Formats: sequence, C-alpha cells, structure tokens
Amino acid sequence: MTHHSPSYAITFRLRYRDQPGLLGEITTAIGCANGFIGAVDIVGVADGLISRDITVNATNVEHGQRIVEAIRQISGIEVVNVSDRVFLMHLGGKIEVNSKMPIKTRDDLSMAYTPGVARVCTAIHEDPESSFALTIRKNTVAVVSDGSAVLGLGNIGPRAAMPVMEGKAMLFKEFGEVDAFPICLDTQDTEEIIATVKRLAPTFGGINLEDISAPRCIEIEERLERELEIPVFHDDQHGTAIVVLAGLKNSMRYLNKDLAAARVLINGAGAAGTAIAKLLMQAGVTDIVVCDSKGAIHKGRTDIGNNSIKVWLSENTNQAGQSGTLSDVIRGKDVFVGVSIANVLSEDDVVAMSEDAVVFALANPDPEIDPKVADKHVKIVATGRSDYANQINNVLCFPGLFRGVLDVRASAINDAMKLAAADAIADVISPENLTNHYVIPSVFDRRVCGEVAKAVAQSALETGVARRRTKQAYRVV
Amino acid sequence: MTHHSPSYAITFRLRYRDQPGLLGEITTAIGCANGFIGAVDIVGVADGLISRDITVNATNVEHGQRIVEAIRQISGIEVVNVSDRVFLMHLGGKIEVNSKMPIKTRDDLSMAYTPGVARVCTAIHEDPESSFALTIRKNTVAVVSDGSAVLGLGNIGPRAAMPVMEGKAMLFKEFGEVDAFPICLDTQDTEEIIATVKRLAPTFGGINLEDISAPRCIEIEERLERELEIPVFHDDQHGTAIVVLAGLKNSMRYLNKDLAAARVLINGAGAAGTAIAKLLMQAGVTDIVVCDSKGAIHKGRTDIGNNSIKVWLSENTNQAGQSGTLSDVIRGKDVFVGVSIANVLSEDDVVAMSEDAVVFALANPDPEIDPKVADKHVKIVATGRSDYANQINNVLCFPGLFRGVLDVRASAINDAMKLAAADAIADVISPENLTNHYVIPSVFDRRVCGEVAKAVAQSALETGVARRRTKQAYRVV
Repeated sequence: MTHHSPSYAITFRLRYRDQPGLLGEITTAIGCANGFIGAVDIVGVADGLISRDITVNATNVEHGQRIVEAIRQISGIEVVNVSDRVFLMHLGGKIEVNSKMPIKTRDDLSMAYTPGVARVCTAIHEDPESSFALTIRKNTVAVVSDGSAVLGLGNIGPRAAMPVMEGKAMLFKEFGEVDAFPICLDTQDTEEIIATVKRLAPTFGGINLEDISAPRCIEIEERLERELEIPVFHDDQHGTAIVVLAGLKNSMRYLNKDLAAARVLINGAGAAGTAIAKLLMQAGVTDIVVCDSKGAIHKGRTDIGNNSIKVWLSENTNQAGQSGTLSDVIRGKDVFVGVSIANVLSEDDVVAMSEDAVVFALANPDPEIDPKVADKHVKIVATGRSDYANQINNVLCFPGLFRGVLDVRASAINDAMKLAAADAIADVISPENLTNHYVIPSVFDRRVCGEVAKAVAQSALETGVARRRTKQAYRVV
Repeated sequence: MTHHSPSYAITFRLRYRDQPGLLGEITTAIGCANGFIGAVDIVGVADGLISRDITVNATNVEHGQRIVEAIRQISGIEVVNVSDRVFLMHLGGKIEVNSKMPIKTRDDLSMAYTPGVARVCTAIHEDPESSFALTIRKNTVAVVSDGSAVLGLGNIGPRAAMPVMEGKAMLFKEFGEVDAFPICLDTQDTEEIIATVKRLAPTFGGINLEDISAPRCIEIEERLERELEIPVFHDDQHGTAIVVLAGLKNSMRYLNKDLAAARVLINGAGAAGTAIAKLLMQAGVTDIVVCDSKGAIHKGRTDIGNNSIKVWLSENTNQAGQSGTLSDVIRGKDVFVGVSIANVLSEDDVVAMSEDAVVFALANPDPEIDPKVADKHVKIVATGRSDYANQINNVLCFPGLFRGVLDVRASAINDAMKLAAADAIADVISPENLTNHYVIPSVFDRRVCGEVAKAVAQSALETGVARRRTKQAYRVV
C-alpha cells in the first residue's frame, strides 16, 4: 500500500547554471525515483545561476531521502536545502487564540476588562448557570488526552500527543464552528485524570476525551459523566461507534438487508470494540460476537476474569456461546468490524463469510485485510483510510455532535443522541445514491455537520438533557 | 468620583410618532438625567412610527435605570427594549480558538492530522524539548485562576472569574501577540492547584497565575516555579511590582532624587505589597516600612507569628524598627505606595510626608486617597484608574514580559528579568518628556511591549535561563 502523500512532501531548493534540458533531467530523475512532482517554482536568478524550489510527494520518509539522493547524482546541480512540508506547517503549533473584538481604545478596555467586566463577573457569581452564556463555555470544548494511546503510535506521552490534539481542535473549528482547546495531561493515573478534568470544568462547555488507553478510558469517561455538569465524550469509543453504525445502516440499506437480523463479528475487545457492540445493541442488533486476540469472547472463557470490559462482553454478547479463533467464528457472518491490528483477517476468512458480506477493516494505519483482497469476495468494504472508498472517519461525527450539544447546552450525551447522530450521518446519502463504494459520506461533505447537529440537538430536547433557556436577556431595567 | 463610562453604557430602542421637537425632548431628558449620549441611530420607520436606538453612557447601573425612567415619563414614547453594551459584548465569551491554516482538502487533512501528524508526534517523543517548537507551547500561556481574589470582588469562584481571565487573554494577544488561554479551576486548595497546574504544563509555554488570594498565591507560585520546566509568574505580585518600580524610577528621575535613598512606606502586606517591597530592595531601596491594617510591621509585633509573609517583612524591612499606625509612620516619608483599600489615607497624612513626596494610591477601584486631594500636597500622584494621570496598569508589563520569555524560551522569570522589564517601561519616556502627570507610559503606547520583550529576552540570555537553540532545523536528509 504505497501511496504518494503530501504528508511525505519535501521541498528542495536547487541551484544550477540554467541550460536547455537540465530541468528535464531533474524531473526525469525524480520520476525514475518514483517521486510525484507537486510544484516547480523559480526562486531567483543571480550570477547566471537559477534557483528553483521543487516540491515532491513521496510515499514515506526513506523514499524522500532516495529522491534527494537521485538529484544529487546529476552533475552541476547544487541541493541548497531540503525542507519538509509537514514539519514546516507544524512550527509554532497549528491553532491560535484570538480576541473576538479588538482592544484599541480606553472604551474597549473598560468594557472587556476593568471596570466593566466586574458587572459580568457579579452576574455569574449570582447565577452560575449564566457562565454558559457569558463566557467561552458557550462554545468551547476541551480536547483532553494523557498521550497513552495516540493514533497507532501507542504511549508516546502528553508532549508528543499535542500535535494530534491541536489537529482535532482544528477539525472542531473547521467542520463544527466549535472552539476547542487541546489539554495534554502530565499524568496517566486514572484518579488524577478524573480529578484534573473536574477542576478544569468551569472553563469549558464540554469535554472530548481522546487517545486514552483502555480500560482506563472507560472508567474515566463513566466517572466524569456522572460527576460533571457538562457532557463528556470519549471519541475513540463513541465517535467510532456512531460512524460505524451509520456505515452499517447504509450498507444494509444498499443490500436490502435488515441490520437487526445481521450476524456481526467485532474483532477487537478494547474500548472501541465494546462501544461498537453496545451501540449496535441499542440499534437492535442481537447477534454479536466479539473476538480478542485469543478468539471469541464467551461465558466459558476463564482467562478474562480481571478484565471488566471482557466480562461484560461475555455476559451480554455471543448468546449462542460460539468459541474458537477468529477464523472459526467468522464463518457465515454477515458483518465483520475490525478495530484491532493489521493483517489479522485472511482471504479464506472473508471467503467463509455469508453471501453479500460486509467488511469494515478499521485498523490504523493498515487494515485487518488489504481492502483490494477483501473486495474480491464481499459486497462492501470500508476502512479508516482516505485512499480507499468508504472511509470510516470520526470527523463525520464529533464536530456536528458537539455543535448540537452546545447549541442546546446539553448536560450529557445519551444513547438516543448517539443513535440520532448515526442516523443523520447515514441519511446524508439518499438511498438511490448508495453504492457499494459509497455507504458513508465524504469527510468533506459539508452537509454532514449541520444534519448531525440538528439531530443531536433535537434528541437532547426530546430526552430532557437540553438546558438552554428559551431566551437570555440581560438588562439593566 | 462619578464618571460617564462605556462600561455602564446602555442602548435603548424607542418607538414613537415622529414630530418636530420630540427628539429634542428625549435628548434633553437624557441630559437632565445627567446621561452622556453616545450615538443616535434610526432603526426603521413603519406605520408612521420611527424606531431609534440611543446609546447613553451612565456612571453606574442605578444611573442607567434613572435615565430610562426619565425617558419613560415623556408621553408618546415607547421604550421597546433596553440592552446593556457590556453584557452584549460578553455573550458567548470574548475569545476564540482558530486554526492557523484551513483544512479544505485531503492534502490539508493528511498534513495537519493523520497520517502526517504521526511523524511530528514521533519527533517530539524522541526529543520532548522539540514540543516548544512544534506545538502551541511555542507561543501559548495559561492564565490560571481559582477565582478566590478577583478584582475588588473577592472570592467569587472560578465560573465568575472567567470573564476577567478571558479579558486577560485578549490583552496578551492584543499587546504581546501571545496566545493565552484562560483556565479557571474548580478548587481553592493549594496542593490541588499545584498538582493541577503541573499536569497542564505539557500544553503551555508559560503559566500566568491570576487573582489567587494571599498567602496561598505565594506558596503556589514558589512551588510551581521550582517544580515546573516552564516559567510561572503571578501577575498580581510581580506585574504590579514591576510597573510600580518603573513609575517610581521615573518619579525620582523627574524630581532629581535618588530612588535608593528614598524613604518608602508600603500600605498593604499582602502578596502585592510584599512583591513590591522585595523588588524595590532588589533595585537598591533600603528604607522600606510596610504597614498592614494594624500599622507598621516590625520585629516587635507579636500578632503576626502565623503569617509567613509578615514574619519575613518584619525581619527584612523597617530596619529602624518604626512602630505605630499608618498616620504615625507616614511622617517624613518620600514615597507612599498603597495596595490596600479605599480611603485609608487622610489629607493630613499626605501633608505630613516629606517635601516633593510621591503617592501611588493603587487600591482598586477606589484609591487610598482621592487623587485630587493628594495632588494639592504632593508632587506626583499615581493610581490604578484610567481616569487620572499616571495609571499603574499591569498591562504595561505582562504582554511584553511573556513575549520576551517565549521568544528565548526562558525556563524561569528571575529578578534580573523583572528589573530589566521595569527599566524598559520607565525608559519609554525620555527624561525630557517626564512631567508630574506623565511618569508612566500609557497602556496604549505601542512601544512598551517591544521594549519590555527585548529587555527581558536579553536579560534571560545574560542570566542563563534562555533555552532557545540558535536554529531549529527539521529535515528529512
């Protein structure tokens, strides 16, 4: 799965005595090294020497190095410098904090700061709920991580997790018009994380937990949800579950099958797999088997006693008590959802599934099975990757979900709201437009966020967790 | 001290059948009620009725109500609604979080988020120091409060403190181009505050503590300073001390006196008073007496044993061992600095000071003595207020100070840097331009921040706390 990506783009500045054919020689060398040329710019001409910046997409870091080496072989070419587009764009971070209004005059200062601000403070002191109207709580979410399970990188710690959380904050703003601020915590202790987030709550209207390893993430979310006045959402669990459910709904719609009757196998018994199982159950699915690395989880497993998630799964899924390896239990299944690791699903495994089967192979960055292989044997394949059809991407959910939550000042994010979000995502594609390569909207489909926000807000109102007063009025008389 | 302020501005919408003289009647009524008309706008005309918005600055909330009542007395005038400019500008909070670059395409997404971001995370994991270059730590400060001592309002709690911290973040950006984010903590326990701020540190390049009551604020700052890798600055202590020192330097320069030889009385033995005493000592002042509400603090005081600040002051100031009330010990003093409460200084007190005395009456919002009264007897008067000459305002310091700190990635803010900041603020006014009404620059003097930043950065380099590498290079080859 090699793929030219701007995330492996490099820009090199070359200086040489210009002569016919030399640029051709350079571009040919890049092409022979399998580099994809993005841009060629003239920087300047001095002393008969021309300087050009050439931007090339490579497939990975080593590939970039090979391309530069190939150019260095051309006589008469000086490689002045090489810079890396991804690192350049990260310099100084990716988000900033701005004032909504300027402070240019005394009047500005006396309203936004002292003495005017004192009246606003007093109003909130008298009515703490008004902090949701008169401060950034109205539109601001914390993106909180401890850096213990970042992307596919594992436990890289809070400092190294920051670029991901900043990126998440960008997506919140870009897609949901939600202000989000990254908070990476210098602790991985469950109680310390809970205590810290509780102390941060007066600043925020909601908490998005991110990239915290299982099983701690489940306890942290449950406890915070119970103990805080603002909604808490662990995106790796519920965001994933919502988008998976949306994709499965459309898959079944396309295949004219009933989702509730589907035989589902989930591979991966961590936080995401469990959240998917729970949400599918809420959506009416009854036949669910969850596998961990040792195979199907069932009541007879004696090796899971110390893992509360797996005990719960053994008691609440796999009613038929299937046992055996993934390859054993996948036979005859209608749906495979993988939230595990690369290449654990073989071609024989998918061949053994039912007719018109569906495979969601979501391991990141490399799926449980090469989607091109799975595609030969099943009807619908989805992955987490952007370079294949049907990308299951959480960005379809969290910006719209929190947009809706903040709009009605929801105190919690309940199952009804999650189901409503999944429906909204699925329904963005009208049934006649569904194909096996289009069961989930594009992350850049700008209709998604608004539809999700509307559905989530409506569901919050219906289920009694919306707290927004009909009209806020602040008057001196 | 009544004063028409936009922080007490109200806008009322009036609807009436337009006829000659009626607007005059309205404006006359406002004038008779002592309202200051800011703007008159026509909103629309319908059914022969005209709607106008009239914005009026009042002196306080009750005054605004009286103005509205006066208009209600005019026959034929309907007051459609009354809105309050300050509350309107606070709706939804005053700051926002923005992306520095858009995410409009797959390429954008793959560089700012997955998969490109993974390489940046890995680079920080391998070299945690690089988080100061590759994340928002490079330019971002937390403004942390527990809401225990907010403005003159006292312990109003974290929710009600948010508007002040948001305002502070605005000032950081407006004056220093520093990204600052408000964090109001739902705890007032010293150890919990320390633990929480330490856990937040991976996100930030510096910590600005704000409006935390004494004596906890001193321990919190000292502990965090020792235990964190990033600089910690309690603005209410050191920001105030730096600006006071700048003002006193210029006062002495204008009066052709030697600051080091001045007899100084500080009224207020809290965090600010102590920080001022310490910084003046660093600047060479030797004759300092600090008073609390019971009078001069000296070695013989038996009622201060449980207050570590006052014990320190008794051992390190008032070498002559003066005792007695404020009125007793102010006799013959060259400088009075008040960081206490309104109206504790009498006219007789200032009369008893030395010739060419200086009075900095900084109690907020009302000074220790009416500056107009003090002005009759002393040479230079400064307050914290914007409606008198010589405003001692921390905004002269903290934006430039943190600008300099972040520019050189200082690990601490030491005394040398504080003294350098005070010098820089003072030196913005050239000696020939000094007058008794102009010993401190205006908060809107745009030269101040740059001068402070330069001086602080230079001092950090000289004292060995700057950590910035000469050049960051991120290259694939």
